Amino acid sequence: MTIPERPHVVIVGAGFGGLHAARALKRADVRVTVIDRHNYHLFQPLLYQVGTATLSPSHIAYPIRAILRRQANTRVILADVVAVNTSDRQVRFRDGEIGYDYMILAAGATHSYFGHPEWEPHAPGLKSIEDALEIRRRILLAFEQAERETDEAKRRALLTFVIIGGGPTGVELAGAIGEMACKEMVRDFRTIDPRDTRTILVEAGPRILPSFAEELSVKAEASLTTLCVEVRKNSPVTSIQPGLVVIGQQRLDAATVLWAAGVAASPLARSLNAPLDSAGRVLVEPDLSVPGHPETFVIGDLAAFLHQTGKPLPGLAPVAVQQGRHAAQNVLRVCQGLSTVPFHYRERGTLATIGRAAAVAQFGTLKLSGTLAWIIWSWVHIFVLIGFRNRVRVFLEWVWAYVTRQRSARLITGHNERSGTQGL
Amino acid sequence: MTIPERPHVVIVGAGFGGLHAARALKRADVRVTVIDRHNYHLFQPLLYQVGTATLSPSHIAYPIRAILRRQANTRVILADVVAVNTSDRQVRFRDGEIGYDYMILAAGATHSYFGHPEWEPHAPGLKSIEDALEIRRRILLAFEQAERETDEAKRRALLTFVIIGGGPTGVELAGAIGEMACKEMVRDFRTIDPRDTRTILVEAGPRILPSFAEELSVKAEASLTTLCVEVRKNSPVTSIQPGLVVIGQQRLDAATVLWAAGVAASPLARSLNAPLDSAGRVLVEPDLSVPGHPETFVIGDLAAFLHQTGKPLPGLAPVAVQQGRHAAQNVLRVCQGLSTVPFHYRERGTLATIGRAAAVAQFGTLKLSGTLAWIIWSWVHIFVLIGFRNRVRVFLEWVWAYVTRQRSARLITGHNERSGTQGL
Repeated sequence: MTIPERPHVVIVGAGFGGLHAARALKRADVRVTVIDRHNYHLFQPLLYQVGTATLSPSHIAYPIRAILRRQANTRVILADVVAVNTSDRQVRFRDGEIGYDYMILAAGATHSYFGHPEWEPHAPGLKSIEDALEIRRRILLAFEQAERETDEAKRRALLTFVIIGGGPTGVELAGAIGEMACKEMVRDFRTIDPRDTRTILVEAGPRILPSFAEELSVKAEASLTTLCVEVRKNSPVTSIQPGLVVIGQQRLDAATVLWAAGVAASPLARSLNAPLDSAGRVLVEPDLSVPGHPETFVIGDLAAFLHQTGKPLPGLAPVAVQQGRHAAQNVLRVCQGLSTVPFHYRERGTLATIGRAAAVAQFGTLKLSGTLAWIIWSWVHIFVLIGFRNRVRVFLEWVWAYVTRQRSARLITGHNERSGTQGL
Repeated sequence: MTIPERPHVVIVGAGFGGLHAARALKRADVRVTVIDRHNYHLFQPLLYQVGTATLSPSHIAYPIRAILRRQANTRVILADVVAVNTSDRQVRFRDGEIGYDYMILAAGATHSYFGHPEWEPHAPGLKSIEDALEIRRRILLAFEQAERETDEAKRRALLTFVIIGGGPTGVELAGAIGEMACKEMVRDFRTIDPRDTRTILVEAGPRILPSFAEELSVKAEASLTTLCVEVRKNSPVTSIQPGLVVIGQQRLDAATVLWAAGVAASPLARSLNAPLDSAGRVLVEPDLSVPGHPETFVIGDLAAFLHQTGKPLPGLAPVAVQQGRHAAQNVLRVCQGLSTVPFHYRERGTLATIGRAAAVAQFGTLKLSGTLAWIIWSWVHIFVLIGFRNRVRVFLEWVWAYVTRQRSARLITGHNERSGTQGL
């Protein structure tokens, strides 16, 4: 006679959803395995600050292993999951596999170039640390190259930055680049004047920050204008080539183009053989499980959970956190032979920042903008960062950046033909 | 009639030598151009702490442009110098060129694999930020892979770290890896015990830290032993292959091999058509100029300056700093029609750190080891870091690391086949 082993819960992805699911299982009588292809949890809401040289990667990334160190029932493994086989209850890695009794799939999302994957090398998006460092490299390198460029047209193109997508990430990137060029680096160059920089935020729809109230979109646009950012609405991008963006019929020469427009679910969703929505997300049951597989749950950016309004919930951290905890509770209910409970999202508010002392915030019917919204934004983000050390470090970096108007990570790193880091 | 232009001083390289040369010309009636292939000055003495996850790149790198912002006679350009033509007084970049009246060449050194360039991919060295991040990636990834490995022999190889070269860099790397494995990460894994890690420091000569007094070599070796580091002296490496190091006749299976043994001058030295020593360094005149070219000076790691003893000065930061200032003074003397003055090195002492509260220090006949040497080491390094912000940040990181025994930058970043960062 063998003692039955405790049920094995596999969590794929240690973003907000996966990590909170794991923590919710801390005292449960189950074995937990957390699998991620990175060794760290990444605080994505501040990733744009790595891309714009205010923070370093280690400020917003924390080893998963260190977070879950004291959780004795939990194992962390670094692996690249390529498929989930729901009939055999197996997770397949690039180099191995693991079985499960219960699965919480939280593999997140990636960029979508709306059927134009050829745009990606010319307009990188912002999802990973590597993405952020590449964006930082391109922004800083453009100023360096402009300082050396003698051809006037080429110099103008080097000092033109186009950000595509007027959601929170696009607004944050454009605001930070505008601030850097227009306010902070003014005395750093001898040939160029960084204030000649054009930062252009391009939005296909009729307004930026479409998930906010219309009056906040207007205020955000006004704040961006004071940071020398041009906002172009109703401007769908029709082509991106090296050094060139075409908006409608207009051609814009720009050495640096950043992508903040489209998001698509991780391709892992397809391996489930479950119904997907048009963005590739899994259409989950009200209890977050996959139709026909009560032992498999999908959460966060990978899940299309239909809200009371009929629209899917947005890909935001609070949604993932709440779903992670809820999926963990439902796993335990199934373990105990109880029926699962449906998920309900408690919306607490949304925030987006634009620049120095400028943000917008919406809490139900309360709408805020300017310095107060920015203070709330700052505190909320510091408060939810993982690790006390990171909270203190980010706070100190922000205070310092605010007082000195200098960014602490203005480094061009990584190898690339354009940068010429070999050969000296 | 035209007003004669002020003389143009070109400084190649913004390491310790080049940067101090530029600063010494701050109030001089010359035009200065500082050229570097990176946009930052790198504080190399602490680079091993980036490689071993204690510091982030932005802690020890500072934009050259920001350092020289207030120096109105100085321009900074990012460019990859490929040759110096002393007859035409031209510096050639990969993509352009610039003329000079006076030149201070401070292009530094690179790794030397003693005629075995094929070893480099299997045993990376530590000269650049990219090198340090690659070393960090390999160290952390080895533990992650060991946690998943089921084959006992393979797991042992993954938990074997070989550091080649018993100079200060090798000692610092070995001490940090030993400390991490043996003391800090003990509770982080479920399958492996990090204390099973073997960290092996391999030195071809009869003792480690050969530039220090013999009693300090003995003390350093004893300190390393308490950090679970095995020290192998009189052990020349005869072959490095993927996963394998051969020392004399003995084969060591090791997934991670780091190179801290050889240094060679930048290949730029060859373009000068000047006499070089066996390490490729320029044999400079007593005033640091190139023989036959009184307008061209070579300093720092690129210069072979013969000491009173007949041996060249070592490749240390204080040598480069003093030579940078001296070369700048000699440039100004030549400008004014005065004769140059010979360089004399003022040795202030040497330091090397091993780990937590362990270092060795030598000031003339005074020899120190242990906690006191470590405190001196810490303060000296914080004091000479460029930028007040960096001093405070590094100090806070060290205090935190000391108290919590946790490293703040335990991140596996960058793309590589071994890591599998794509595909999820």
